[in-house]
Amino acid sequence: MIQIAVLGYGTVGSGVVEVIETNKADINKKAAADLAVKYILDLRDFPGDPYEGKVVHDYNIILNDPDVSIICETMGGTKPAYEFTKQALLQGKSVCTSNKELVASHGPELLKIAKENHCNYLFEASVGGGIPIIRPLNYSLTAEHIDSITGILNGTTNYILTKMDKEGVDFDEVLKEAQDKGYAERNPEADVEGYDACRKIAILSSLMSGKNVNYEDIYTEGITRISSADFKYAKQMNKSVKLLALSRDTEEGFFAMVAPFLISREHPLYSVNDVFNAVYVHGNMLGDSMYYGRGAGKLPTASAVVSDVVDCARHQGKTIMCFWDEEKVEITDIKCARRKFFVRVPADRRDAAMGAFGALAEVNVGIAEEFAFMTQEMSEKEFDEKIEKTGGCLNRIRIMA
Amino acid sequence: MIQIAVLGYGTVGSGVVEVIETNKADINKKAAADLAVKYILDLRDFPGDPYEGKVVHDYNIILNDPDVSIICETMGGTKPAYEFTKQALLQGKSVCTSNKELVASHGPELLKIAKENHCNYLFEASVGGGIPIIRPLNYSLTAEHIDSITGILNGTTNYILTKMDKEGVDFDEVLKEAQDKGYAERNPEADVEGYDACRKIAILSSLMSGKNVNYEDIYTEGITRISSADFKYAKQMNKSVKLLALSRDTEEGFFAMVAPFLISREHPLYSVNDVFNAVYVHGNMLGDSMYYGRGAGKLPTASAVVSDVVDCARHQGKTIMCFWDEEKVEITDIKCARRKFFVRVPADRRDAAMGAFGALAEVNVGIAEEFAFMTQEMSEKEFDEKIEKTGGCLNRIRIMA
Repeated sequence: MIQIAVLGYGTVGSGVVEVIETNKADINKKAAADLAVKYILDLRDFPGDPYEGKVVHDYNIILNDPDVSIICETMGGTKPAYEFTKQALLQGKSVCTSNKELVASHGPELLKIAKENHCNYLFEASVGGGIPIIRPLNYSLTAEHIDSITGILNGTTNYILTKMDKEGVDFDEVLKEAQDKGYAERNPEADVEGYDACRKIAILSSLMSGKNVNYEDIYTEGITRISSADFKYAKQMNKSVKLLALSRDTEEGFFAMVAPFLISREHPLYSVNDVFNAVYVHGNMLGDSMYYGRGAGKLPTASAVVSDVVDCARHQGKTIMCFWDEEKVEITDIKCARRKFFVRVPADRRDAAMGAFGALAEVNVGIAEEFAFMTQEMSEKEFDEKIEKTGGCLNRIRIMA
Repeated sequence: MIQIAVLGYGTVGSGVVEVIETNKADINKKAAADLAVKYILDLRDFPGDPYEGKVVHDYNIILNDPDVSIICETMGGTKPAYEFTKQALLQGKSVCTSNKELVASHGPELLKIAKENHCNYLFEASVGGGIPIIRPLNYSLTAEHIDSITGILNGTTNYILTKMDKEGVDFDEVLKEAQDKGYAERNPEADVEGYDACRKIAILSSLMSGKNVNYEDIYTEGITRISSADFKYAKQMNKSVKLLALSRDTEEGFFAMVAPFLISREHPLYSVNDVFNAVYVHGNMLGDSMYYGRGAGKLPTASAVVSDVVDCARHQGKTIMCFWDEEKVEITDIKCARRKFFVRVPADRRDAAMGAFGALAEVNVGIAEEFAFMTQEMSEKEFDEKIEKTGGCLNRIRIMA
């Protein structure tokens, strides 16, 4: 019997308990042991809940119980999750988490503590919810040199952008609807400004490089400036707008960023719609591969946490390999990145734009007040200079090659 | 230092050597050991090849060398691959294979021998080439009850169908072109008749059920009857035709089959084109997930074989979990499966069809000699009875729900 404690009885935490209960037979077979939830830590009480007897308010009860060998940290945030996780690992208790903030900010340190204490810190659920992506990167693509990751890593923004694309409505309207449906938070900043996707691509970039990519170094731009007009132009170009989180290991440097991109109908990420997430990975032998599924939600996320619990159960006293050193990756300035841009300027700046950009391809959807075009490939720095010469723009969206 | 032998220096075998050489640093780091190819077994000599000195013709040299602990079986076929694999495992040497025929026909027996001899029989490369799918099923989706797998598992047929869809040409013409380009074999039967996909879905179905699905029990229909006219109708219905390999664990029984299906534009498998493969997996907690990539080719397949080598290197003397018992899965008769069908009959059988099928939805693309329609949902048995009453059909294609 392997005893588990769940920290935080919110959406994911209660999902973990539900998954372990619902799929008990399958899970115990795979874990080669019987798993049982012994404690649930929460500030609240849950009268009437079938697990109310397992709820405790003092973390020390869990920490001091030698029977508990695996802890599921589903609290989110770094306080007190960081301290709780560290204390558990120091005692040799493995921790499985869905907490991308904590993994992004303290991943290598916690992995090191786990290793020193012969236990595990696993975080499959921290990126892409239920999509297996951490494990494929760590254990499947081991013969590859991975040089590029491109992800749709936030379900809320993908839902909003899909709606805008399909229904031609504006950002504010869709956001309100998404909030009413519970797909977006009342305070949607972490999603719509790209902060959530930023934490996730920091984690994936770290695993890709084997070193530490600091999420604070990643250029991050949200979707709040994307309008229904942008989608009109996108359609005309056989493209759509997606919030992409990407990471590139190139000869010119290591690039990582989060921003809305125009993406062509032929690209496999184009068809990733609604709350679905996907991670597109390029390796030097394998070429392109993609991992697709529900990037959030109670049960998909909980399923990923429990898959980590199974892994811990099978590796008691042994640390599973994970290459994520504390050594910092120097992120190359985004100004050096080269790409094409889609630009909208007021109609009276048409000549100025043509003067500044030279060769450009006009895109016309019949909006008389505007002049819209695609640029040639150039660095972000060159683009900024040219757009300043033009007198500024209404909007510009990067184009995924 | 871990010494490896490669059996068969053909496309995949030479790819294995190339991957190990090219990505040496990454691979040795992940394997926590230095890997070296000591022998290459082949009937031929390879004068001038940089590895010609490693080529041997007698398997006993490999078998009797205690330094060799991992063998890559990239010969294909069951003779002599089956005997060679068995002999290696009996000596405690792990075997990593791309040989779907052997895995489909002797998987559980070889896994058992590996377990008894504290070594591993791994086969990530046997399905989906470079796409990580065996490992995700075995180690990632461990908290799931997987009830459905739908795959595009054969690159050659997917290339042919994509061409037919995009260019409106007929099967024979595209097949010839594919053969000229080397995408299809001179004897294309294994691909175009669905036999290759059948072996692969047998392997995935076995892992899904944990028991043994005999590939000979799987209803298999190829793509040779699909015509350019079928694609005209498909387009009209916003669908395409794909050769799908599927497996369903339902209350009515366990279904497995390979056949061409009409699939809607909204389905993620619709956009899987050319030589790409994808596996669509449904779990009771996770919902839908998909794994996409190059399903064949020298380096992608070799990369998967080498990822198994890395796993073996990290688990010397220890058998990695794999649930695939010898106990047979009873496959339910396909006649009991329920679905909708697309049907084309000669124009003069229009009334007969309407009489037999009752409610149906006509599909018209202006081919005067035909009457084409979609049926309601019914069992395959009912369909066969009704089509017999109609007097037969020009073609019928199943529709993916």
